[in-house]
Amino acid sequence: MKGIITALITPFNEDGTINEEGLREVVRYNLDVMKVNGLYVGGSTSESFLMDEESKRQLFKIVKDEIDVDTKLIAQIGALNIEEAVRLGKEAKELGYDALSAITPYYYKFSFQEIKAYYKRLTDDTDHPMIIYSNPAFTGAQFSVEDYGELLALPNVIGVKYTDTDLAKLGNLKESHPEKVFFSGADEMLLPFAISGADGAIGSTYNLLGEDARTIYEAVQKSDLETARRVQSHMNKVIDFLLEGGVYSSIKYVFKQKGIDAGYMKFPFRELTDEEKKNADNILEIIEK
Amino acid sequence: MKGIITALITPFNEDGTINEEGLREVVRYNLDVMKVNGLYVGGSTSESFLMDEESKRQLFKIVKDEIDVDTKLIAQIGALNIEEAVRLGKEAKELGYDALSAITPYYYKFSFQEIKAYYKRLTDDTDHPMIIYSNPAFTGAQFSVEDYGELLALPNVIGVKYTDTDLAKLGNLKESHPEKVFFSGADEMLLPFAISGADGAIGSTYNLLGEDARTIYEAVQKSDLETARRVQSHMNKVIDFLLEGGVYSSIKYVFKQKGIDAGYMKFPFRELTDEEKKNADNILEIIEK
Amino acid sequence: MKGIITALITPFNEDGTINEEGLREVVRYNLDVMKVNGLYVGGSTSESFLMDEESKRQLFKIVKDEIDVDTKLIAQIGALNIEEAVRLGKEAKELGYDALSAITPYYYKFSFQEIKAYYKRLTDDTDHPMIIYSNPAFTGAQFSVEDYGELLALPNVIGVKYTDTDLAKLGNLKESHPEKVFFSGADEMLLPFAISGADGAIGSTYNLLGEDARTIYEAVQKSDLETARRVQSHMNKVIDFLLEGGVYSSIKYVFKQKGIDAGYMKFPFRELTDEEKKNADNILEIIEK
Amino acid sequence: MKGIITALITPFNEDGTINEEGLREVVRYNLDVMKVNGLYVGGSTSESFLMDEESKRQLFKIVKDEIDVDTKLIAQIGALNIEEAVRLGKEAKELGYDALSAITPYYYKFSFQEIKAYYKRLTDDTDHPMIIYSNPAFTGAQFSVEDYGELLALPNVIGVKYTDTDLAKLGNLKESHPEKVFFSGADEMLLPFAISGADGAIGSTYNLLGEDARTIYEAVQKSDLETARRVQSHMNKVIDFLLEGGVYSSIKYVFKQKGIDAGYMKFPFRELTDEEKKNADNILEIIEK
Repeated sequence: MKGIITALITPFNEDGTINEEGLREVVRYNLDVMKVNGLYVGGSTSESFLMDEESKRQLFKIVKDEIDVDTKLIAQIGALNIEEAVRLGKEAKELGYDALSAITPYYYKFSFQEIKAYYKRLTDDTDHPMIIYSNPAFTGAQFSVEDYGELLALPNVIGVKYTDTDLAKLGNLKESHPEKVFFSGADEMLLPFAISGADGAIGSTYNLLGEDARTIYEAVQKSDLETARRVQSHMNKVIDFLLEGGVYSSIKYVFKQKGIDAGYMKFPFRELTDEEKKNADNILEIIEK
Repeated sequence: MKGIITALITPFNEDGTINEEGLREVVRYNLDVMKVNGLYVGGSTSESFLMDEESKRQLFKIVKDEIDVDTKLIAQIGALNIEEAVRLGKEAKELGYDALSAITPYYYKFSFQEIKAYYKRLTDDTDHPMIIYSNPAFTGAQFSVEDYGELLALPNVIGVKYTDTDLAKLGNLKESHPEKVFFSGADEMLLPFAISGADGAIGSTYNLLGEDARTIYEAVQKSDLETARRVQSHMNKVIDFLLEGGVYSSIKYVFKQKGIDAGYMKFPFRELTDEEKKNADNILEIIEK
Repeated sequence: MKGIITALITPFNEDGTINEEGLREVVRYNLDVMKVNGLYVGGSTSESFLMDEESKRQLFKIVKDEIDVDTKLIAQIGALNIEEAVRLGKEAKELGYDALSAITPYYYKFSFQEIKAYYKRLTDDTDHPMIIYSNPAFTGAQFSVEDYGELLALPNVIGVKYTDTDLAKLGNLKESHPEKVFFSGADEMLLPFAISGADGAIGSTYNLLGEDARTIYEAVQKSDLETARRVQSHMNKVIDFLLEGGVYSSIKYVFKQKGIDAGYMKFPFRELTDEEKKNADNILEIIEK
Repeated sequence: MKGIITALITPFNEDGTINEEGLREVVRYNLDVMKVNGLYVGGSTSESFLMDEESKRQLFKIVKDEIDVDTKLIAQIGALNIEEAVRLGKEAKELGYDALSAITPYYYKFSFQEIKAYYKRLTDDTDHPMIIYSNPAFTGAQFSVEDYGELLALPNVIGVKYTDTDLAKLGNLKESHPEKVFFSGADEMLLPFAISGADGAIGSTYNLLGEDARTIYEAVQKSDLETARRVQSHMNKVIDFLLEGGVYSSIKYVFKQKGIDAGYMKFPFRELTDEEKKNADNILEIIEK
């Protein structure tokens, strides 16, 4: 499992239920136009932590139903309620998802031993490939190289979605665990991540910038740094605009401009204001330049 | 609503379900021995964020069923899924809970306007007294005096569970909003909180130290600082021990020593180690001194 | 040594040298009008960390020269260059300062053992009473109760200027070291500090609010909580205004309105803007109410 | 000005004065063996913030005296006392240093406008090329792209020593200011920095790893990623060891093993313990592999 994987946005109806047609369109856009290597479903970008369990199951099903045979699918199943996480993991496995992923448990300040026990139980009970989802800015859980080593030694754990900026640690991890996969979670640093040993990248902006991301990733394989730098610079101009009004809501807005019904945000996330929409009107133009 | 309110621990069975008998014993202990003024049910201390919705409903029901007429009951209903929070709020209201409370939405970095919209919807849909649960160390959401003012102006919002140490801000809030209630969330600072204008305190250690807490609170009303100081000092010796192995698990351990079946922790929280138990063996002795 | 001690501001000339006349006036105001129990000279409030060694010596001399026999004097001598700190300490001792104080060494992330060695050498070489100046928000150095215990065990160390908000820790420290002195460094929390065991308070706002501070401190001794609360509330209204444009520059501005030449800020600190001055015009009125 | 620049360590005598012979040896080693492109003198690595002004002047003089014509020299002159900083800047300019550099003023929480005024005055008064030294982990001063733009627009400001890990921001800065120079301050991320647009790197580990650093930097110019990755990995193994006992003291220890008298640390920095020395004994072996 490698390459560019989109952290899928979820189009919602105004009442907070999933907009199935919109979701199918967004999936198709990712596959047919962005041509990304896979989809990461049910993560932060999917606004999954705001959804109920039934909606998460529905999300997994619709995406799987729409998907092509050769697209890799990862289901993010992490939840504070371990029983829910296990049920979701079994469901995703049965649906044919290639791998599971789980955010480190959050809110409470769990010790590393508690976090490790959480992954042990999740992987024992689901018995399916697992990608640790490490996002210290959101969860506060920061791991040392040794901590990562303990997690990677658990049966079924195949890698890490590494949403951090310490590339020396990433390089160290890849070198110590060459058989595991490490995905960048910092889209605006895809190039330095690829250079530093990342096997690929999972990110929200690839909903709109997946093609650019593939170009960077392939350029690095061919040591074509000039191309990689030029395209990363282009990506980052877009990302700067996306950040201004909020990445997820801005992506949805740009999708709508393209005629794709990316739906509403899940409450309490808000939609773009009129002023933010005006700012976001620049994005489409830059993307297509 | 004022005075000492215990943030109730939840005894679990080994499989993560609620240990109903144990729960009833813990409630009775709080009412009959600690004689606290109220119970805060379903908060951090109840390990509620790790429970499924059905268990939370069960928790609300059992506690209500066990309770006396004159004990105030607050149901913490906050959840990242707004629909679940609303359902829980309606249930607690129907059960006869005196007030609701909700943690500020966490994990994502919501803007203040989004957080305000969250409380607006919760209070509109449940139409029952609401206590904002502010715990910046766990959620990252830090409010200014002006922010609090906006939240307190929402219909049904009656006060704040203020789990922070900025007592100047607390004093300012109480003075600007004398008709609202403000509860200390820092048990080891109950005395300075009471001095600074808190109407009462909500805390986990009152499961074991509720009597001490009432003594401090009443001593402050009578300007008996010597007593207040002496008892706070006693409380803090116990709290230091509770912190060493984890407050919730240590409280459960001490309950068991008292013959009250406080049950297991909810996974992934772990139980005390043997060494931590040895340390916790001191607690009971200090409490009863 | 106890009671209310003003952290003295330093009036500067426009070229960054000390405005001696202004300094003498500010000292007199503190003694004659505020009637504080002592002065803390050369700390953060004195903008001392921006001054050269010669100016610091001059500051110590002028203040000593202006002072009355019964006013306690503390010289803050901490400096990253240990030799400078020792020289300043010897000078202040010779001038007749009652005690020395030193900020924990900053900029670099020193280990606790290095910090302890720093105080050991300072106290050995100056052989004069020393008050640890702990200000984690400025220095990053955060101490446990055990760490404080080690520092307080050094010969000549007589106490701590505790610029933090953890009152449980303060209470614990005072109880474990009743013979040492602990000063509040959080002016807006003077009342809860006094309740929690502080022997006094050292703060910048006492340049203007020293009288209020004494009232609070004395009211707590007499268990007159109503007075203490009322005056703390008054103080905090002023402090909120002082914070808006910067505490030190706002204090100087108010002094000037009173006809006392409190001089310029030391570069790169800036003066109040016109708008900030308009806001600060309210302060004098509130103070004198 | 570009390429690999060593942040020079300072050998001290046991009494805290500069060990001139040792300093000359360390300089020669950097020039003759490491063959770095320049030296950064008087920065954090030089323990400069612990030195008095006279020692800093002496440091600048000795290094200049020992240096070859074609080695670039940068003098870090930043000090909280602006007059000292200006004097040091004039001295370094007169001595023939190619550029000045200054840490952002620290300890106090200066506003951006105050920091900008600081650089304006420094550059006006010294009239010599200036490199902003940005190290938010040590100073707390974090700049946006717009802030950097304002600083870079000041006359004489030629670039930034960027000790941070946000490579997207670095790339953005280089693209917006192609005529300015940006130096990596994160030795263990030299490769991703070089890829992301850094003109060079300034770091402490280049005292021992300057040759490796040059190899990486040159490999990136030639798009030879394989070499760059391999050498960065080698560097990072050494850096991990250096971090264990403290980078500066470990570098000095390794120098001594090589027969170069790198002297003592400046108080209150401590020397390696015996155990740390045993660990550091591995470093030389890895370096020379």
